[in-house]
Amino acid sequence: MSAIEGLPVAVDAMGGDNAPVDVVEGALIASEKFDVPVILVGDPEKISDHADLEIIPASEVIPMGADAAGAVRTMKDSSIVRAAEAVRDGKASCLLSAGNTGAAMAASLLRLGRIKGISRPAIAIPYPVLGSTPTTLLDVGANAQCQPEWLVQFGLMGVGYCRARWNIEVPRIGILTIGEEAGKGNNLVKDASKLLEEINWQNFNAEYVGNLEGGDLLTGAADVVVCDGFTGNIVLKTSEGIYNMFDSFIKAELSKTSSADEALAAITPTFEYLDPVGVGTGMLLGVKGVSMIAHGSSSPTAIANAISNAYKLSQMDLVDKIKSSMSV
Amino acid sequence: MSAIEGLPVAVDAMGGDNAPVDVVEGALIASEKFDVPVILVGDPEKISDHADLEIIPASEVIPMGADAAGAVRTMKDSSIVRAAEAVRDGKASCLLSAGNTGAAMAASLLRLGRIKGISRPAIAIPYPVLGSTPTTLLDVGANAQCQPEWLVQFGLMGVGYCRARWNIEVPRIGILTIGEEAGKGNNLVKDASKLLEEINWQNFNAEYVGNLEGGDLLTGAADVVVCDGFTGNIVLKTSEGIYNMFDSFIKAELSKTSSADEALAAITPTFEYLDPVGVGTGMLLGVKGVSMIAHGSSSPTAIANAISNAYKLSQMDLVDKIKSSMSV
Repeated sequence: MSAIEGLPVAVDAMGGDNAPVDVVEGALIASEKFDVPVILVGDPEKISDHADLEIIPASEVIPMGADAAGAVRTMKDSSIVRAAEAVRDGKASCLLSAGNTGAAMAASLLRLGRIKGISRPAIAIPYPVLGSTPTTLLDVGANAQCQPEWLVQFGLMGVGYCRARWNIEVPRIGILTIGEEAGKGNNLVKDASKLLEEINWQNFNAEYVGNLEGGDLLTGAADVVVCDGFTGNIVLKTSEGIYNMFDSFIKAELSKTSSADEALAAITPTFEYLDPVGVGTGMLLGVKGVSMIAHGSSSPTAIANAISNAYKLSQMDLVDKIKSSMSV
Repeated sequence: MSAIEGLPVAVDAMGGDNAPVDVVEGALIASEKFDVPVILVGDPEKISDHADLEIIPASEVIPMGADAAGAVRTMKDSSIVRAAEAVRDGKASCLLSAGNTGAAMAASLLRLGRIKGISRPAIAIPYPVLGSTPTTLLDVGANAQCQPEWLVQFGLMGVGYCRARWNIEVPRIGILTIGEEAGKGNNLVKDASKLLEEINWQNFNAEYVGNLEGGDLLTGAADVVVCDGFTGNIVLKTSEGIYNMFDSFIKAELSKTSSADEALAAITPTFEYLDPVGVGTGMLLGVKGVSMIAHGSSSPTAIANAISNAYKLSQMDLVDKIKSSMSV
């Protein structure tokens, strides 16, 4: 913990749909407005025009469509690999990338190492719940095709994450499926449910609440919800799409009314609380370090929020809590 | 077409979380307020206290948790089986059930028969899109575990449905997955994508638009989106949960403002347009008749809307359009 206190967030300046411009702009906001220490990783010539921030040079960029594992192995001077090395080498507290998700995962896995007992890392996001702590949903995109035992590991990692982040003493875990009755789901869920039911959750200081449906994500029915990365990513993207639709139509309609300011002021705090830009950064759980994954389309504001968020998480005891949640 | 014109909707009075009370109340609203012809199917003693509507007697009820296929075979005097028979026998234009979804599917399949070329029926829902016709999403829960070729059949059925329902001449079909690039997805999507890409869609008077992400459901990026029933059901339930959350918090916050009436009036039409209660009834595509499936938790209003919706659909040329969309 104390070893990484105050160390900067290593930001992959070259990753993202509009990198480096939007990423660097976000890093500047984080540094100047939020007072978060930041170090950019990438091509100094392309970055330095935009910001006067510390830079770790990296000459290569792994493109969005590239085969991630292969690229990370061959492009050793790529920005994402260098960012992960900065964390490994104690030069940064954590890393953040809005680039190729697979490459961010592979670089984090290869450079930071895997926590014992974890087959595959998973991306966790806090799904905001009104009037409650968020529900942690994982996996939201690291593993499109999962084995049943991985979902159990996701649950255990989620327990550690919840405990560190929100001080939830006895996290409740559920599995995302399509009916409340036991035995409902696809083959993966049926097999994973059996494994989840066999565990003595008391030993892990957690509680298994069983099957949850999509709507239960909104109500705080569990602290941790596990699913495969295909399902989780679609749920995440659909949710963000619906948020954006409500945000735009409601604000547009209310703006036309005679008391627009008052109406907008009434709803804005809740919109801000739910805003995926505020909470949407995923954390790759299962590696020995804090590795954060943002959407490729992140705006500068989203990047700045993600950096601030990453920094906060890096100052918690997350990795140790996840490590200890894996054993009784 | 003309043979079923004006025939009543056969409503499974015994299916639903609060059946028969809520279902019968919904049927009364549909009959009295919407002027839709309705016939209730179920135990006359339990129904007749509540409504003075025509009844097809049925002595058995398939419970929510029951093994659907087995129950439909053995419980020949169950309300859902009798409702399907009413359609088969030309006594009703269509059927609606809020009971055991599997039983509704099995009864429809066994009593109405399967359309040639369809391996498995799928449940389709119109996903509302602002400023556009809805996007038809299927399967939303009939098949938790799918074969790749079924997704192709879902696409073809969706084309017929869109064409009949919204007069879309050249429907655009996409596949729900987790990245825009070809080859992104789980094993099912990878295999199904290959099949979808091989088809000459021009021959079917349709267009294949490829990979879509969750957010694309909101933007009208396609007219038909195919996925397995596990993913589709989770997307549907999550979307409904988010709608309900926005509906309740926004109305609560605006109610406290000084111009609450004006603010609420400004947003209500769009909320009504998006309301899952208005559009949420699924249609089982692939059987030779109109079979509608409502949520078990449907309120009387939701049931009434579903009945009205079912009646409208039964008066269209849906089944023939779907049949003809299956062949070049």
